[in-house]
Amino acid sequence: MTALAVDIKQMGAAAKAASRKLAASDSSVRNSALEAIAESLERSEIAILAANEHDVTAARESGLGVHVIDRMVLNHARIAAMADACREIAALPDPIGNVLDERTMPNGLQIQRISVPIGVIGVIYESRPNVTIDITALCLKSGNGVILRGGKEAFYANSVLAEIAQRAIRSVGLPENCVQFVASTDRSLVTEMLRLKRYIDLVIPRGSAELVRFVGETAMMPAITGGVGVCHTYVDAAADLDKALNVVMNAKTKRPTVCNAMDTLLVHSDVVDRFLPQLADRFGVWGVEMRADDRAMETLNAIAAGQQVVPARADDFGTEFLALIAAVKVVDSMDEAMDHIAEYGSGHSEAIITEDTDAAERFLAEVDAAAVFANTSTYFNDGGQFGLGAEVAISTSKLHARGPMGLREITTYKWVVRGNGQVRE
Amino acid sequence: MTALAVDIKQMGAAAKAASRKLAASDSSVRNSALEAIAESLERSEIAILAANEHDVTAARESGLGVHVIDRMVLNHARIAAMADACREIAALPDPIGNVLDERTMPNGLQIQRISVPIGVIGVIYESRPNVTIDITALCLKSGNGVILRGGKEAFYANSVLAEIAQRAIRSVGLPENCVQFVASTDRSLVTEMLRLKRYIDLVIPRGSAELVRFVGETAMMPAITGGVGVCHTYVDAAADLDKALNVVMNAKTKRPTVCNAMDTLLVHSDVVDRFLPQLADRFGVWGVEMRADDRAMETLNAIAAGQQVVPARADDFGTEFLALIAAVKVVDSMDEAMDHIAEYGSGHSEAIITEDTDAAERFLAEVDAAAVFANTSTYFNDGGQFGLGAEVAISTSKLHARGPMGLREITTYKWVVRGNGQVRE
Repeated sequence: MTALAVDIKQMGAAAKAASRKLAASDSSVRNSALEAIAESLERSEIAILAANEHDVTAARESGLGVHVIDRMVLNHARIAAMADACREIAALPDPIGNVLDERTMPNGLQIQRISVPIGVIGVIYESRPNVTIDITALCLKSGNGVILRGGKEAFYANSVLAEIAQRAIRSVGLPENCVQFVASTDRSLVTEMLRLKRYIDLVIPRGSAELVRFVGETAMMPAITGGVGVCHTYVDAAADLDKALNVVMNAKTKRPTVCNAMDTLLVHSDVVDRFLPQLADRFGVWGVEMRADDRAMETLNAIAAGQQVVPARADDFGTEFLALIAAVKVVDSMDEAMDHIAEYGSGHSEAIITEDTDAAERFLAEVDAAAVFANTSTYFNDGGQFGLGAEVAISTSKLHARGPMGLREITTYKWVVRGNGQVRE
Repeated sequence: MTALAVDIKQMGAAAKAASRKLAASDSSVRNSALEAIAESLERSEIAILAANEHDVTAARESGLGVHVIDRMVLNHARIAAMADACREIAALPDPIGNVLDERTMPNGLQIQRISVPIGVIGVIYESRPNVTIDITALCLKSGNGVILRGGKEAFYANSVLAEIAQRAIRSVGLPENCVQFVASTDRSLVTEMLRLKRYIDLVIPRGSAELVRFVGETAMMPAITGGVGVCHTYVDAAADLDKALNVVMNAKTKRPTVCNAMDTLLVHSDVVDRFLPQLADRFGVWGVEMRADDRAMETLNAIAAGQQVVPARADDFGTEFLALIAAVKVVDSMDEAMDHIAEYGSGHSEAIITEDTDAAERFLAEVDAAAVFANTSTYFNDGGQFGLGAEVAISTSKLHARGPMGLREITTYKWVVRGNGQVRE
């Protein structure tokens, strides 16, 4: 797709050097860079739309699905939204240089723990070109260098957007290499990038389960993986079934292609006869296929004949469908539901619907996931919905960052010790 | 060393199951377990000393160095110190279940970020048997399961100590499998352990650079690596040379075999003639070998003939000596010193000695390491010295935990969302 040779190692070294300067820059300069990007996005609309048009035409010709193409398409409103995102991020408090802890030891040493940038972050992502700007803005704000490797579908738009960012960064006197775009769709470059432990401090894959697994297995540097959610909603014996119906519909149908959509519904046997037939009706209208275990099939066969209901296979449990499909299982207790989640969940988003506060609190305490929900939809697992502002990704890693990753989650800290000649005995 | 077959996968599964129960246990029960371990240590002194004697005899016969053996030897005082450590950890505030952030969104969702255990932690360590108890106590306190793999030198003492911990845990009604010891010195089990991503959430290697590198490259789960420190002390043009002398002596000679000892001394050319000869005298008394670059050699040859001074080879810079050896380099500016540190440092502990506050503050801000020091010794990089209490390790990773890892550093968090039927539009 491009004939330019990309030297990814050189990019890494340049990013590392630039990131040291960026980390030492004043936050007002970093904010000016964000404003400059916003202005340049607005001024460059025609160039961005032309590049996007090129990508979209190629995507249509290669037979990509309507949903993928819909996510790729840019227009005036979407470009304006990218510029707004830059300005919103500029307006957030500076995430670096904050004193997280502070103490003076008996020997007079002053010890502080200070938030600092991580260094250089590699982000590997797919399709949506606005991700290029969102990630760039979050990394700039937090003083991190970034190497962006976008999907081939959005290659031209991403290239133009990255160039806009670099020009804007240069215009405020920061080193443009703190944001770099891998200007090639050669897949072997991803593998090479994942070996650059010396220059890239953290890699974040955003995309398919396959990409996430590949990065997890290949990366020599730490990876925070996310975006893969096998999410359960458990409808308890004490559930308000109207709430359950609304929440389950929302979690499954509102945006079935995202990671926080419900995959498996667990229903307590006490309410299965009252709940499942109603749900099957609503699912039927929306075209949701139910893959039901034997006990759920009993109820559904009897009542909901004609709906899109098929017997579940063993591997439907633990599958992220990313489609209008839900696995359904009947359980006899909340413990059975929690055991199922421990076995099959991916640690992303897990919900309980119940009016029994004790049960809800036990579920929230004992289920191990990035986010746990009582009486609401897993679809809420999102940086914006949690009040964090923009997000880099939703982490299902347990270390460093869990759930929506905003600015704080792409910082680390260091210990700063000030003395006056003290020595340790 | 043992004929028992160790099924590490089964250990992992058992640890995971036990860790779920431990995470749901009350902190008072976990504290009782710590008290029970302390009491049992005191009661079991004879058995512990006998096992240790066995290890020490074998170590002497196999020709292990005096320093290694010294670290291994247990006695009444050291066993009492282990018991004390358990009680001190029991007395610390509960690190889990704390509300880290809290907000109510406009739609009424109540969102909290709560500290929780990581799950199961694998720790691979060497020689000192008290590590078995320290790590066990920290993991129990923080609700984490742990799989311990100690060094073969301390195999018998470690086995006895782990058994004491298990019995104590059982005695308070917690599942004993939340602490497990790999009762074999078969090295292939370490490799197998590092593949158990499903059951072990985090692995921490404590030991040689070789072990740390092996774990970093092999582990399928996240690893927090540490214990490898290529530490610099920069003596600035504006240094108080008496302070510099004391601090450099402390950082190099107080405990040369540990990771926070100074490896490379960087000296500003303005003070090299006044500083290095004095230092060479002091180093000479302590038997510290200086490996000096050309410019340092000029000064030292002229003045300090007869001291242990040899020309540095290129690979002396960036080497962790763990011995009474220091590389010495003359620089013409703080920037040159910082560039050298960025190139050769391992991100562990870096110090500046200067009376110029602006220079000190720039060094502290711009040098990227777990801990940065002004006018004091890198040897202070330690959980106890930083006021954290006991530590699991000193991390040179940049993610999750950096520097001394206390209780907080072996927890993670989850998002807890309480609703009343809200759905996302």
